[in-house]
Amino acid sequence: MSTAAGIGQANELKDLCLNLALKAREASRKLALVRGELKNAWLLGSAHALVERSSEILAANARDIADAPTHGLGAAAIDRLRLTPDRIASMARALGEVAALPDPVGEILEASRRPNGLEVRKERVPLGVIFMIYESRPNVTVDAAALALKSGNAAILRGGKESLATNLALMGILEAELTRAGLPRHAVQLVPTTEREAVGCLLGLADLIDLAIPRGGESLIRRVAAEARMPVLKHYQGNCHVYIHDPCDIAMGVKIIVNAKTQRPGVCNAAETLLVHREVASAFLPRAARELRAAGVELRGDAEARAIVPEMVPAVPSDWDEEFLDLILAVGVVDSLDEAIEHINRHGSHHTDAIVTTDLESARRFVAEVDSSAVMVNASTRFNDGGELGLGAEIGISTDKYHARGPCGLRELTSTRWVVIGSGHVRGA
Amino acid sequence: MSTAAGIGQANELKDLCLNLALKAREASRKLALVRGELKNAWLLGSAHALVERSSEILAANARDIADAPTHGLGAAAIDRLRLTPDRIASMARALGEVAALPDPVGEILEASRRPNGLEVRKERVPLGVIFMIYESRPNVTVDAAALALKSGNAAILRGGKESLATNLALMGILEAELTRAGLPRHAVQLVPTTEREAVGCLLGLADLIDLAIPRGGESLIRRVAAEARMPVLKHYQGNCHVYIHDPCDIAMGVKIIVNAKTQRPGVCNAAETLLVHREVASAFLPRAARELRAAGVELRGDAEARAIVPEMVPAVPSDWDEEFLDLILAVGVVDSLDEAIEHINRHGSHHTDAIVTTDLESARRFVAEVDSSAVMVNASTRFNDGGELGLGAEIGISTDKYHARGPCGLRELTSTRWVVIGSGHVRGA
Repeated sequence: MSTAAGIGQANELKDLCLNLALKAREASRKLALVRGELKNAWLLGSAHALVERSSEILAANARDIADAPTHGLGAAAIDRLRLTPDRIASMARALGEVAALPDPVGEILEASRRPNGLEVRKERVPLGVIFMIYESRPNVTVDAAALALKSGNAAILRGGKESLATNLALMGILEAELTRAGLPRHAVQLVPTTEREAVGCLLGLADLIDLAIPRGGESLIRRVAAEARMPVLKHYQGNCHVYIHDPCDIAMGVKIIVNAKTQRPGVCNAAETLLVHREVASAFLPRAARELRAAGVELRGDAEARAIVPEMVPAVPSDWDEEFLDLILAVGVVDSLDEAIEHINRHGSHHTDAIVTTDLESARRFVAEVDSSAVMVNASTRFNDGGELGLGAEIGISTDKYHARGPCGLRELTSTRWVVIGSGHVRGA
Repeated sequence: MSTAAGIGQANELKDLCLNLALKAREASRKLALVRGELKNAWLLGSAHALVERSSEILAANARDIADAPTHGLGAAAIDRLRLTPDRIASMARALGEVAALPDPVGEILEASRRPNGLEVRKERVPLGVIFMIYESRPNVTVDAAALALKSGNAAILRGGKESLATNLALMGILEAELTRAGLPRHAVQLVPTTEREAVGCLLGLADLIDLAIPRGGESLIRRVAAEARMPVLKHYQGNCHVYIHDPCDIAMGVKIIVNAKTQRPGVCNAAETLLVHREVASAFLPRAARELRAAGVELRGDAEARAIVPEMVPAVPSDWDEEFLDLILAVGVVDSLDEAIEHINRHGSHHTDAIVTTDLESARRFVAEVDSSAVMVNASTRFNDGGELGLGAEIGISTDKYHARGPCGLRELTSTRWVVIGSGHVRGA
């Protein structure tokens, strides 16, 4: 980019990003004041239009699928990219579910009358502009737009270039419905270039964009976190643990680790490591191993685990830190609750960790001392999910401690502000 | 630093910072589990010890005061640095007030039983380690330590080098009381070097430090925000507005602007700009100008304001963006509520802005559309303060939208996590 032409292109890209963000900021000012009814009208109108115009969407998607090999996509990625009438119906259903959620904007979180008579309240307001960066699944385009708008925020969306035609078709529909509902046209925008530098450029605009949300592989998330000058809602990994304590209900423990590992192995709240207390290891491990292996799980055990179940592959040290996202499970035997907690806090990703025990005090200690976004007692790690915890749809899961931790729904896309009403109050001291 | 000795020193500093942060992290793990009684015992013990050992503190402070001219400190800065028995008593009183506040840690924010019988709750936990960077006032050492610990966090404190002897004396007392209360000794630590590079080094340790809080001039805050790899709790400026609308109670408007400007002109919630609706300008401005000028305020008016009060200095464009922190007030006449809102959102710092009006709908629009951490109706901007809003002591005011906005007390120094309790629950879909 040291040639004049290169610099010209860089400036053009900068202008394009700035313009996009300025339009989003302006739309966000208007959106913050919009009543919930209008936002719901847009959500329901869009749900209807997605189904009605599904042939357009499918045609665009077919072009992306045809081009997929040129982007080097494998079979799994192509499957994620592919839309069907069923998948479009499920996108539409998701819009209806978001419409049914309560509007977080304007919610009054606290209110009091101060001793001097001032009326004081803290109320919920939108964050402003949200920039979402994601990979191949086109349903994220619809979900992210819905959650951002329902929470009163403007959205800038950047999908993968392999899904560009599909995303443009979806956006055309969402935009037409914005106009029809009387909402600002730039409330949702797609980044209008596939140039990679556009992402970095937008991540620098901290005055115009309030939050960045990367969704995809760890390398994408790390790149966004490193470049963003605004807050980032994220988790890098879900290296989740199930710890089988003594005393426990062994059948329950088997059921929970099988569910946590195998029900959907590719997601962030699936278990990656099983820890077992020495006292129950010889009773628990053979039964668990039998069921896990029957479900196709490769077990990588430490020396003690392998002494009990010799079919296990020997675990190497890096296995304790790995998010397999696959039918692989690291298995270790520990001496005590303390050792389990210590292992989880050191090797885990502070995402979701579970204990299986019948002892109340051990459960209380595990809950108090494991430093994760969600801690489970006698329940599968898979329950760390916005829908399961009662938040409704989620835009992602945060393992950070600042702002929001755990599943992030509509409320987590908002801020607050104070409103103070007096009758000529002034301060004396 | 290109010599071997320079590199050696840099490495030594890096080790020192890393060691400090590691000790803080370890202390924070223990602190998170400590009962409120112990934290309060430390707060009250420290309050007592500060008074009892005040001669040590005053002797150390006298050394700092004697050295102050070598640091280039002026009379105002020396006054901020100076301790007296009264000021020590007021530090001790502040500790007692923090002890009296409810413990935020463990507070249950939400709890529900899901349809499948899972018990789900969201509870408050400490952030972890807080790094506070501040300038000359030694009371910040005591206040910051108290708020951080009461909220279950370990604190790393970095005061100005001009107050080092005083801060060391204060820390000696706080540390002795930690030991006496049975709390981790490294729960509060002073950065043990005055080297400027130590701040940058600590601001890079995002894995060990959860939050940075700069308190001081705008240049300090900007430097911290630029270098920090962890979240920063901050506001750059408090460019606060009072807008006098038509209709309004003119006497009330005069009382509010005089209070907002003059009651404590050097603080962030003091007013810096007065906007007046054209319809009330000729009735309001002469009365307001008389009282403001009597209080020693220099008025910088736009052409219309000066046509009414010719004694005003002509305002220059930069006056609208300036945080004077002094007895200076920019004065402008506007045509409408819209123009006032537009002016405030463009020139303000999203800190605190007030409207004076008798019209309910105008007040509602101002509250809805002014994008500030606190919006006041018929009350002085000076009320944007943790104590006044009922939060108790505050560690600072945030104008950011992520995490906490407005005054930040104990709760704003915490995070949350989910606890899920089942009886063998697994997920089906």
